[in-house]
Amino acid sequence: MRKIVIGVMGPGTGASETDRHFAYELGKLIAQEGWVLLTGGRNAGVMAAASRGAKAAQGLTVGILPTADASGMADTVDLAIFTDMGSARNNINVLSSDVVIACGMGTGTASEVALALKANKPVVLLSDHQESQRFFTGLSATTVFVAKTPQEAIAITQKLIDY
Amino acid sequence: MRKIVIGVMGPGTGASETDRHFAYELGKLIAQEGWVLLTGGRNAGVMAAASRGAKAAQGLTVGILPTADASGMADTVDLAIFTDMGSARNNINVLSSDVVIACGMGTGTASEVALALKANKPVVLLSDHQESQRFFTGLSATTVFVAKTPQEAIAITQKLIDY
Amino acid sequence: MRKIVIGVMGPGTGASETDRHFAYELGKLIAQEGWVLLTGGRNAGVMAAASRGAKAAQGLTVGILPTADASGMADTVDLAIFTDMGSARNNINVLSSDVVIACGMGTGTASEVALALKANKPVVLLSDHQESQRFFTGLSATTVFVAKTPQEAIAITQKLIDY
Amino acid sequence: MRKIVIGVMGPGTGASETDRHFAYELGKLIAQEGWVLLTGGRNAGVMAAASRGAKAAQGLTVGILPTADASGMADTVDLAIFTDMGSARNNINVLSSDVVIACGMGTGTASEVALALKANKPVVLLSDHQESQRFFTGLSATTVFVAKTPQEAIAITQKLIDY
Repeated sequence: MRKIVIGVMGPGTGASETDRHFAYELGKLIAQEGWVLLTGGRNAGVMAAASRGAKAAQGLTVGILPTADASGMADTVDLAIFTDMGSARNNINVLSSDVVIACGMGTGTASEVALALKANKPVVLLSDHQESQRFFTGLSATTVFVAKTPQEAIAITQKLIDY
Repeated sequence: MRKIVIGVMGPGTGASETDRHFAYELGKLIAQEGWVLLTGGRNAGVMAAASRGAKAAQGLTVGILPTADASGMADTVDLAIFTDMGSARNNINVLSSDVVIACGMGTGTASEVALALKANKPVVLLSDHQESQRFFTGLSATTVFVAKTPQEAIAITQKLIDY
Repeated sequence: MRKIVIGVMGPGTGASETDRHFAYELGKLIAQEGWVLLTGGRNAGVMAAASRGAKAAQGLTVGILPTADASGMADTVDLAIFTDMGSARNNINVLSSDVVIACGMGTGTASEVALALKANKPVVLLSDHQESQRFFTGLSATTVFVAKTPQEAIAITQKLIDY
Repeated sequence: MRKIVIGVMGPGTGASETDRHFAYELGKLIAQEGWVLLTGGRNAGVMAAASRGAKAAQGLTVGILPTADASGMADTVDLAIFTDMGSARNNINVLSSDVVIACGMGTGTASEVALALKANKPVVLLSDHQESQRFFTGLSATTVFVAKTPQEAIAITQKLIDY
């Protein structure tokens, strides 16, 4: 039976210390819920921190890589999907996630949030970035949720999954 | 020799009357400059209006379709590229455009602007939508430009091409 | 740490009874080796049979779906990757597999074998189809292997993995 | 109105002298018919030769590149579509062609022929490679045609288009 998959999207090298800390917590909490963690799989920023957190709690981690092989991959990825599609793989990230949590913001993350909303996939924004919140809730009032902490993001995700 | 390609991205069925009017003007002006017009190719909103404008000025129109065949395609598309990739084709749209002009805003358009910025492709926002301007110029101050009219968007594009 | 992933590719509705029987055995043997089974994920032919075999041996099954959601998916897929890319997802199937086993033959399977060889990925042909063997060993003598039984295919795979 | 697009697929660096000669002739004949030539766009083998032939007859050439930019592109490509998708772009090549002509054979070309047959797209094999002919006509007797010369390939294509 298909496992529940939660995507954590966020900046790579541009991630802030808070982004990485929150990503680690998200990964850990997702694993503790028994969900699978899906990230972009690269060895940088939010992707690497979330996968590390999930492994700390014995979770299963999936990485959807932009590359054709494992160069630049986080070593905490259990299951690597190699797309060789660059940023076009962002659409696979969101389609394959039951809920998308955006942890921090950047151009790649913005594309993932927008693609998720386009596909009617619920998105939790974990960020105090006011412009992101205004922009994305303006685009889709009913499928964007805002959280201030990883714990709050997981509580919202839990409700979205149950629903 | 490779022709200059200008992408016009914008909402389909969600396009406003202004969006469609501006898209038609953009298509016409792009054709008059001797550039190729690239759109998402569907028979709706900004895509259809821009292609119609370009054909009114004897331009060449390319449509990058999300589908595997011509169902739902604008009949003013000269050259159809069938991707069968849904929204993942948005990345091809922006990579194949020398400059991306966003005419109006929506979830699909937002993904295209974000993917363009991710790929370091210049974007002209033709919209009085304040939240979009704030959000995207916040993401990438140096590659986002704001225009109030199609004429202004083309003037900016001309400078970006010359540069 | 990244798990070993073995792809089993083969016809959907066009699969023969032998193809399905061999696919079930392959899935079971792959799971018994502790490897992850990767298929195209649809509820048909070789994909469904291989996944059923792997679950019978408590393995982990990944499905790389051509669709945007779970309609038409085999219910023995644990981890669903939704690509919405139609047959272009065949390239992801082979890039994400450490070894590709082709069980039976058809147009989709032929594309997967060819894409695997293009990417220098080893392929085991489990088929008594002489024309396939001649064609593909002619294309790439050093990376195509022929097996007559699922057990032989797994023995070859084991050597390729160890190497 | 959508232009007729004929895809010429064949080896890059692995192309034989005959492959390149035939590809040049195909490109020229396609342009003389008023059709658009579509290739994989790279500056190598059949792709480059076909585009050169089409330009010699003032045709329009489209290249569907595996890359994100113009590095490695044939300079006889008029319209470049940058996919950044590696070999997954092969599916776009065949979906966007009204008829696919395979000029020579290799792993990439084999994937294109197989993907074309999967999509019910007619394929003309221009090759004296017996194993290819047997394999692909065996896969799909009604949509594979064999030609011995570029002129014969174009005659078959003309009938397929008219039909």
